[in-house]
Amino acid sequence: MGNIVRVNMSNGSVKSEELPEKWTYFGGRALTSAIIGEEVPPLAHALGEENKFVIAPGALSGSTAPISGRLSVGCKSPLTGGIKESNAGGQLAQIMARLGISAVVIEGKPEKDKLFTLILKKDDFRLEPADPFKNMNNYELVENLKKEHGEKNTAFMTIGSAGERLLTGASVAVTDPEMRPTRHAGRGGVGAVLGSKGIKAVVCNDANTDMRKPADKEAFTTACRKFAKALSEHPVTSEGLPTYGTNILSNIINEAGGFPTRNFTTGQFEGTKNISGEKQTDLMKERGGIISHGCHRGCVIKCSGIYNDKEGKYLSKRAEYETVWAFGPNCGIDDLDDITRLDRECDDIGLDTIEMGAAIAVAMDAGICSFGDSKGALKLLEEVKNGTPLGRIIGSGALITGQVFGVEKVPVVKGQALPAYDPRSIKGIGVTYATSPMGADHTAGYSVATNVLNIGGKADPLSKEGQVEVSRNLQIATAALDSTGLCLFVAFAALDKPECFAAIYEMLNGFYGINMTADDVVAMGKEVLKTERDFNNRAGFTKQKDRLPGFFNKVPIAPHNTVFDVPDEELDQVFNF
Amino acid sequence: MGNIVRVNMSNGSVKSEELPEKWTYFGGRALTSAIIGEEVPPLAHALGEENKFVIAPGALSGSTAPISGRLSVGCKSPLTGGIKESNAGGQLAQIMARLGISAVVIEGKPEKDKLFTLILKKDDFRLEPADPFKNMNNYELVENLKKEHGEKNTAFMTIGSAGERLLTGASVAVTDPEMRPTRHAGRGGVGAVLGSKGIKAVVCNDANTDMRKPADKEAFTTACRKFAKALSEHPVTSEGLPTYGTNILSNIINEAGGFPTRNFTTGQFEGTKNISGEKQTDLMKERGGIISHGCHRGCVIKCSGIYNDKEGKYLSKRAEYETVWAFGPNCGIDDLDDITRLDRECDDIGLDTIEMGAAIAVAMDAGICSFGDSKGALKLLEEVKNGTPLGRIIGSGALITGQVFGVEKVPVVKGQALPAYDPRSIKGIGVTYATSPMGADHTAGYSVATNVLNIGGKADPLSKEGQVEVSRNLQIATAALDSTGLCLFVAFAALDKPECFAAIYEMLNGFYGINMTADDVVAMGKEVLKTERDFNNRAGFTKQKDRLPGFFNKVPIAPHNTVFDVPDEELDQVFNF
Repeated sequence: MGNIVRVNMSNGSVKSEELPEKWTYFGGRALTSAIIGEEVPPLAHALGEENKFVIAPGALSGSTAPISGRLSVGCKSPLTGGIKESNAGGQLAQIMARLGISAVVIEGKPEKDKLFTLILKKDDFRLEPADPFKNMNNYELVENLKKEHGEKNTAFMTIGSAGERLLTGASVAVTDPEMRPTRHAGRGGVGAVLGSKGIKAVVCNDANTDMRKPADKEAFTTACRKFAKALSEHPVTSEGLPTYGTNILSNIINEAGGFPTRNFTTGQFEGTKNISGEKQTDLMKERGGIISHGCHRGCVIKCSGIYNDKEGKYLSKRAEYETVWAFGPNCGIDDLDDITRLDRECDDIGLDTIEMGAAIAVAMDAGICSFGDSKGALKLLEEVKNGTPLGRIIGSGALITGQVFGVEKVPVVKGQALPAYDPRSIKGIGVTYATSPMGADHTAGYSVATNVLNIGGKADPLSKEGQVEVSRNLQIATAALDSTGLCLFVAFAALDKPECFAAIYEMLNGFYGINMTADDVVAMGKEVLKTERDFNNRAGFTKQKDRLPGFFNKVPIAPHNTVFDVPDEELDQVFNF
Repeated sequence: MGNIVRVNMSNGSVKSEELPEKWTYFGGRALTSAIIGEEVPPLAHALGEENKFVIAPGALSGSTAPISGRLSVGCKSPLTGGIKESNAGGQLAQIMARLGISAVVIEGKPEKDKLFTLILKKDDFRLEPADPFKNMNNYELVENLKKEHGEKNTAFMTIGSAGERLLTGASVAVTDPEMRPTRHAGRGGVGAVLGSKGIKAVVCNDANTDMRKPADKEAFTTACRKFAKALSEHPVTSEGLPTYGTNILSNIINEAGGFPTRNFTTGQFEGTKNISGEKQTDLMKERGGIISHGCHRGCVIKCSGIYNDKEGKYLSKRAEYETVWAFGPNCGIDDLDDITRLDRECDDIGLDTIEMGAAIAVAMDAGICSFGDSKGALKLLEEVKNGTPLGRIIGSGALITGQVFGVEKVPVVKGQALPAYDPRSIKGIGVTYATSPMGADHTAGYSVATNVLNIGGKADPLSKEGQVEVSRNLQIATAALDSTGLCLFVAFAALDKPECFAAIYEMLNGFYGINMTADDVVAMGKEVLKTERDFNNRAGFTKQKDRLPGFFNKVPIAPHNTVFDVPDEELDQVFNF
């Protein structure tokens, strides 16, 4: 599609080169994983000069395809030790794609303690010193960048102090249309890798560029319309998500008994009504927030929102379901203002909310503060902000928090914290958690759709039967989708409506002038997963890494009194394709 | 040989059962590894109820065989995630063996925060509550135990506050003949496993028992004499070690350029003359210390010693070479009083000195304190003692310290810190570090003997040639030796003198009335290693775990300007037998 921009932090060079032909139609995750798989030694230190940090817009980003602005970042993860693709919304993907950039590859390592801003404007790719931004967190940093670079046609990628400190819970922030650092590539410690490269900010501006042009305008436009129509007709993408955001799930998952509460002690939270999407929307309405808001231009679902405080002043984005869960039930906190403040702090410091909620819950299990103590939780994030030893422990994520405090119950796979669904009561997602090359990641194969929402088929969440197939198919489809730049949430419609699924490859066909079939989409997803598994295998990962922590197999969880019982031998069949 | 005593911490039962026939001649490491390999699920949480803590005297312990009082403890290691045998001197092995105990197996898990003492006296095996000892460190604890249980015929195994806190740098202390907690099974976080079982102390008393009797008294006595004579004739075991202790190595290894200094930055330390064994002996003489002292009765080498402070008062045992290195050159400290104080603190809190020296050096690299700052180092151990977040980080070892503080250069293999020999200038020991199932462990196959001391053959330390064979043979021999209860230091003579080596299996033959040959010793060592490798494989270890951290392959070290260049393919041949 375009060029690879290579940024060498060892010598400061920024060079553009043509995308190799073999990767012509690759975007997003397909491209980040291909580059990492080919160029990073699997045993490289994740924070060393041999690792690379790749930023790739999706294959359709920068075009008029609806909701095509998702961005992938890739690297070897300092959290999992394996390959990582972490995905974010925000404005950057569209702008970067319009600059003709297929991927930015940041490699090497600068002099110690030197910071840089990477500037990507039309005919102007360069590094400039960013030392004055040292230890600055995302909100303040973005204000400074706005003053310097303006807001028009602009998007920023930034790290806060967590990324600079190389904490393995550190995220990468991307600005939303209002130039707030609220959209994060959160998982796997990607912020630490960007920090290890000395990149404090990436400034992208697409002034004087055009929308990317399709090869077959008519076919492309027809497919885009078909796609938008399908999204507008599915209840989840047209009503549920726009009205209640992702937090529509709190009531649903609580009802299903899969809402992990107080560090995965029980599957239902007594305070759910106080933190649900319905309650959140009511509060946002009362306080003059924005209920339905796109995290990037071109979004047609608009599940994000603006959450104001009691005085009606902007506090943060609408906290996503995973965040509401991480700081809510998982920490025993039932106050949306507190949860949103914790969300805001994470966005500011540059931290993965899932990892932080998990780490704080583990710290609560260790007695550092009590379940339900929202002030204690906020204080822990304050410690991360201040870089104290305790803050560094928490900021390093749940696994290290558990190790340092001697906690046995630590819900991680491959070192990465489990998201907001208990695998004992929603077994399909347990298969994804266990086997995804990414570590525990709900977005890698969202079996919750099939298990609980009856989307894309049905599978009893409490039964072990058929879950491997559910997860396998979703992992394949997701790997393909993550490569297009389309938001994962289109999958709700695509899984239910064949014409919506068809519209996806028809958009690719129209845009690139090719002839993909449904089978080709599947083949593409398999290829991405194989590349990722191959990297992990070369890094020394074995089937024993494709397991949930033992307590999920042994300690039953209320209300269903079930354990995760999908046999190991079946887990080992997920990638048997 | 005797019985297995099973201590179930879940229900408080203590039961004796016969040693299975297949393990009749097993002792020490052969037995701990066999039991762990057979009874612990490889994916068990190391601090959970499925792990077991095994204590086993050697096959010859409790007999009149010279220097046969080494003790093995075994478990799944919370530091490496693999199988662990950690070895200690002190009085316990002899006493336990005379009680007819081949192994104590501590299993299950007690109620949270409950502490117990395990009493092992003739016809009296039981648990008693030890809650008053909570948070007590080893020196004070031992004073209390002495008051309660006396000193005669007695030995204690204890953990300090580090073990109670489940820190992965925690050791298990064993009392020496003067009832001081100075002999430690240091490596792999074994103290945390004992802590997780709620065992604060093991009290052993062999009153009213006899020395274990050989099957063939004459053959046994002849072999013992032959063995003692050989030890008395070899310069290392008869002169070097008794006069200067293990710290005789400081000058030698510094001269060889393999003395890792300031977190493995260079291979020679400018302050070596101030910390050498020669200097240490002079100081000890001046202050009325004891130069040559056995860590257990029956020792004929007597390499340990008593180190007094400037006022002539007992400060600690003579700090061992590895400890002198860990806190000395590795932390840039060149004062023996400071180093001995750090050693004393580790013995008291119950910490592995190698792991602590490595962790503090990594913290120094992170700027927490400066290289050479002995007060800063002591303060860090104080933090461990107080259980502060910073102390918990350091007490968790070098790997976690590096992760939490974002340090790239962390000298560990399989999570365990490298001891006192740089693998770039003494390549044979690098092969052992990389491949031992124990993680980086000099005692697992001490190639330094052949590389530097020209014992058991010669191999140029700077050449990669032949190092795999050197390490393989030593790892096999060591695994066998670690099973006998004989001190590893007998190997200096056994490697050089065929009659010394023969005396070892002749002692076993005489004691058990069997007919082992030299080949059988080799077969025994191989069997132990196979058991250990098999456990690790089932825990998901692959060849990628058998590697040194990348900087050893890339960053040359002064004075020889060499890197570790034994090819990966050769490392993978170490266990090809």
